[in-house]
Amino acid sequence: MWEARSSSFWRAVFAEFFGTMIYVLFGLGAALRWVAGPHNVLQVALAFGLVAATMVQALGHISGAHINPAVTVAFLLGSQLSLFRAVFYVAAQVLGGVAGAAVLYGVTPAALRGNLALNTMHPSVSLGQAVTVEIFLTLQFVLCIFATYDERRNGRMGSVALAVGFSLTLGHLFGMYYTGTGMNPARSFAPAIITRSFTNHWVYWVGPMIGGAFGGFLYDFILFPRMRGISERLSILKGERPDEPESPPEPPGEPIELKTQAL
Amino acid sequence: MWEARSSSFWRAVFAEFFGTMIYVLFGLGAALRWVAGPHNVLQVALAFGLVAATMVQALGHISGAHINPAVTVAFLLGSQLSLFRAVFYVAAQVLGGVAGAAVLYGVTPAALRGNLALNTMHPSVSLGQAVTVEIFLTLQFVLCIFATYDERRNGRMGSVALAVGFSLTLGHLFGMYYTGTGMNPARSFAPAIITRSFTNHWVYWVGPMIGGAFGGFLYDFILFPRMRGISERLSILKGERPDEPESPPEPPGEPIELKTQAL
Amino acid sequence: MWEARSSSFWRAVFAEFFGTMIYVLFGLGAALRWVAGPHNVLQVALAFGLVAATMVQALGHISGAHINPAVTVAFLLGSQLSLFRAVFYVAAQVLGGVAGAAVLYGVTPAALRGNLALNTMHPSVSLGQAVTVEIFLTLQFVLCIFATYDERRNGRMGSVALAVGFSLTLGHLFGMYYTGTGMNPARSFAPAIITRSFTNHWVYWVGPMIGGAFGGFLYDFILFPRMRGISERLSILKGERPDEPESPPEPPGEPIELKTQAL
Amino acid sequence: MWEARSSSFWRAVFAEFFGTMIYVLFGLGAALRWVAGPHNVLQVALAFGLVAATMVQALGHISGAHINPAVTVAFLLGSQLSLFRAVFYVAAQVLGGVAGAAVLYGVTPAALRGNLALNTMHPSVSLGQAVTVEIFLTLQFVLCIFATYDERRNGRMGSVALAVGFSLTLGHLFGMYYTGTGMNPARSFAPAIITRSFTNHWVYWVGPMIGGAFGGFLYDFILFPRMRGISERLSILKGERPDEPESPPEPPGEPIELKTQAL
Repeated sequence: MWEARSSSFWRAVFAEFFGTMIYVLFGLGAALRWVAGPHNVLQVALAFGLVAATMVQALGHISGAHINPAVTVAFLLGSQLSLFRAVFYVAAQVLGGVAGAAVLYGVTPAALRGNLALNTMHPSVSLGQAVTVEIFLTLQFVLCIFATYDERRNGRMGSVALAVGFSLTLGHLFGMYYTGTGMNPARSFAPAIITRSFTNHWVYWVGPMIGGAFGGFLYDFILFPRMRGISERLSILKGERPDEPESPPEPPGEPIELKTQAL
Repeated sequence: MWEARSSSFWRAVFAEFFGTMIYVLFGLGAALRWVAGPHNVLQVALAFGLVAATMVQALGHISGAHINPAVTVAFLLGSQLSLFRAVFYVAAQVLGGVAGAAVLYGVTPAALRGNLALNTMHPSVSLGQAVTVEIFLTLQFVLCIFATYDERRNGRMGSVALAVGFSLTLGHLFGMYYTGTGMNPARSFAPAIITRSFTNHWVYWVGPMIGGAFGGFLYDFILFPRMRGISERLSILKGERPDEPESPPEPPGEPIELKTQAL
Repeated sequence: MWEARSSSFWRAVFAEFFGTMIYVLFGLGAALRWVAGPHNVLQVALAFGLVAATMVQALGHISGAHINPAVTVAFLLGSQLSLFRAVFYVAAQVLGGVAGAAVLYGVTPAALRGNLALNTMHPSVSLGQAVTVEIFLTLQFVLCIFATYDERRNGRMGSVALAVGFSLTLGHLFGMYYTGTGMNPARSFAPAIITRSFTNHWVYWVGPMIGGAFGGFLYDFILFPRMRGISERLSILKGERPDEPESPPEPPGEPIELKTQAL
Repeated sequence: MWEARSSSFWRAVFAEFFGTMIYVLFGLGAALRWVAGPHNVLQVALAFGLVAATMVQALGHISGAHINPAVTVAFLLGSQLSLFRAVFYVAAQVLGGVAGAAVLYGVTPAALRGNLALNTMHPSVSLGQAVTVEIFLTLQFVLCIFATYDERRNGRMGSVALAVGFSLTLGHLFGMYYTGTGMNPARSFAPAIITRSFTNHWVYWVGPMIGGAFGGFLYDFILFPRMRGISERLSILKGERPDEPESPPEPPGEPIELKTQAL
């Protein structure tokens, strides 16, 4: 694959690893319970939103700052990056998430680790309800990302990073009581592997993946259709070298491949 | 009507349906009571603001992302969209709101549904006070939308989505204790129909409609007058095909009709 | 005065009246106490910030959206508007604030009005401490406004409205316990006149006026000096008709006088 | 040094002094305890973020608004400003922080001063954990600053000030319980000198310095490499007069040296 020979590809993969590590470290860390009383949902929701915003700000022009397998898979289904790149992104995200949870485990006194902010379902929420909630949470998130990263738009959209971050905050404000809000399989997997707690863990993969795929489909095929032929789509998925450099989904305005040439 | 023959019109109507569904699902959902204690007004206010911001970000270039009958009616009175389009928008918004409340009903355990965050008046607030509060809540909101969507402006206005969302958050910070904050008849109607609770329901239609109309009038006629003749206004309201494609109110910078040609 | 013959001048004066009315109505309203327990400082701080942001978004291109006598006086001392305009702005702001407090009085059940969120000093804070706090609160606010409205800048400054609003939120996060946070004589005067409580009221005029004047001086003379001669300054203060239309301070990028010609 | 002969250099040094004074005054002030109960982490986190955002908005085009020795040192290691300028910046920041804490001491009633929001470690957090947390806190912050100030980018990045501020808020949401969140040696030093409490004080210098240096290195050498030779780097560090005026790191789009010529 030609992508593997470009240093920008490997920098992008590293950015996904690093970004997901920071996302999980700060998100889970802010959700630990140091004081008694009810969970401060707003505080946790803002922490997840702001860490995503900060990573999109810092890494968006390097890898697109997906830091979320559900986002990468949605972009893959929308033919916006190659299968090769997607596989490396998802692997980097999952490993990065585990690294972030491991750092959190290391820096937190044993008595305060709890379950490392593991995603758990409310006892009275059924599996079907939980999956549906995760679908809707991720659906609005990926819809917002597709619209925000859409290179065909050029209006007054403000900060890409804040749009993505606040959509994630929104998801936590609604979903915390139902499922603890996953919206990101790498975020859900990391504390599960470290605390070895996989009860209903599939919910946090199936829900976000379906929701993300549906959100991307809704945007790209129904709401604001992209006119691309099947051969063009296949060519992107295969990662064939385009005549003009392929641009993986990213915050608009900043060409990724330019720096390849600078090297 | 020529509009009905364009696929972009039906995509816009669907966007209004879908946007209002998400708005009601997430807004009401974040306002449910899972823990005892006083209502967390700030959390609810941010949820309503961020879901509006996310939908404006995702759908603003498709339909204008009104997701609110009071906004659509204000734009209609300002001759900024056709009567035909307005009727379909409002119907889609009301149906979308009901769909959102129905999803919320389905995903929430019965014991936690409460009144589905139905808008209710504080016991000591009179009907006149409640209507006045809803008028002022929607007045500032529609004034902000008219100014933000104004295609004559080109200053440092930042994100259209955040401006709209934070104006809605503001409305909830002030109005929650008085009326539960409606500001949007589709949001108020959805839980009312599902819980069959229509006590003082008219307040949540009359207040926002008057406030929205007054806000639009204030902006377009007093504060920053538009110079348009009566024949031009009538032509827009009738939905007559303009020489240059008519642009329904939308976040500036992104022509809606372009995609019609792309199809 | 030539300004009095332009309709845009009177629209600007009305915008100051209306903006301050909304500012006081929503700010004080969100600070009323409907539930027991400690004051929710964050909620009040965000309400004041977001109402200022919404008014700057809606009215910034019409009047500059000062909605604050301390801001108008600071701009006057910086020779950025005429004395004639400043007098009308301040009068409109004070009347607008009283109108906002009157509306709040009218829509709020008597038992819940309290002191209408009157600014009061913490019992253990001395007069000197209170004045100093108000000076610093307004100093950072006016410094931020001068830098944000500076037409010489063209960088990535994001939303003018949010910059102004969040600076006001900041002031409330720090100052609420000391003085209740005035930062705006029109906001402090309105509940004082309605509840006839003028104890230490001068603090809320002297502090913001000194702080605002010092903030403007710091920006315009020390940190980022404007090169303007004394005759040019006098000409602006007198409101003499400039060769090219004078621009009162406003969010950059949107000429105010253009609409005069459109009329 | 030629820089010392330009008035813009001394204005920049004064801006660092003044900005850090305001940062420490408002940040520590909002963290004082006026009411009983658990610390309101969200309120403190927003105060620190918004004061940084306001200072970046007000001073970013004057000095770069580092207001933090860890940021200045990171930029120095990245060869983005001269050693001469860095020394004056850090001295101004430390003095400014002490001035801010002194003002806070003066305006706060004795019974409410507490430890002036001194950074302290949670009793069960070890020194190694505390240093690691401070490293990660500052790492994400400096990474975000480097990416946001990067003059090679020109995408939809929104407000520089909010990106920086919200990254700081994020740090407080995660780190408050561990170390009280330093992230800025000037902020940590100021209350320490006034309350003469230097227990584990080194943690708040070593952690942020390592984290900042690592964040800058990660961005400039790994993630988005700058192609600059060793002689060019040395020339910048020495502060040799560049052929085209040297630009110290600043929010992009606003040349600092232009105003030197205007004088």
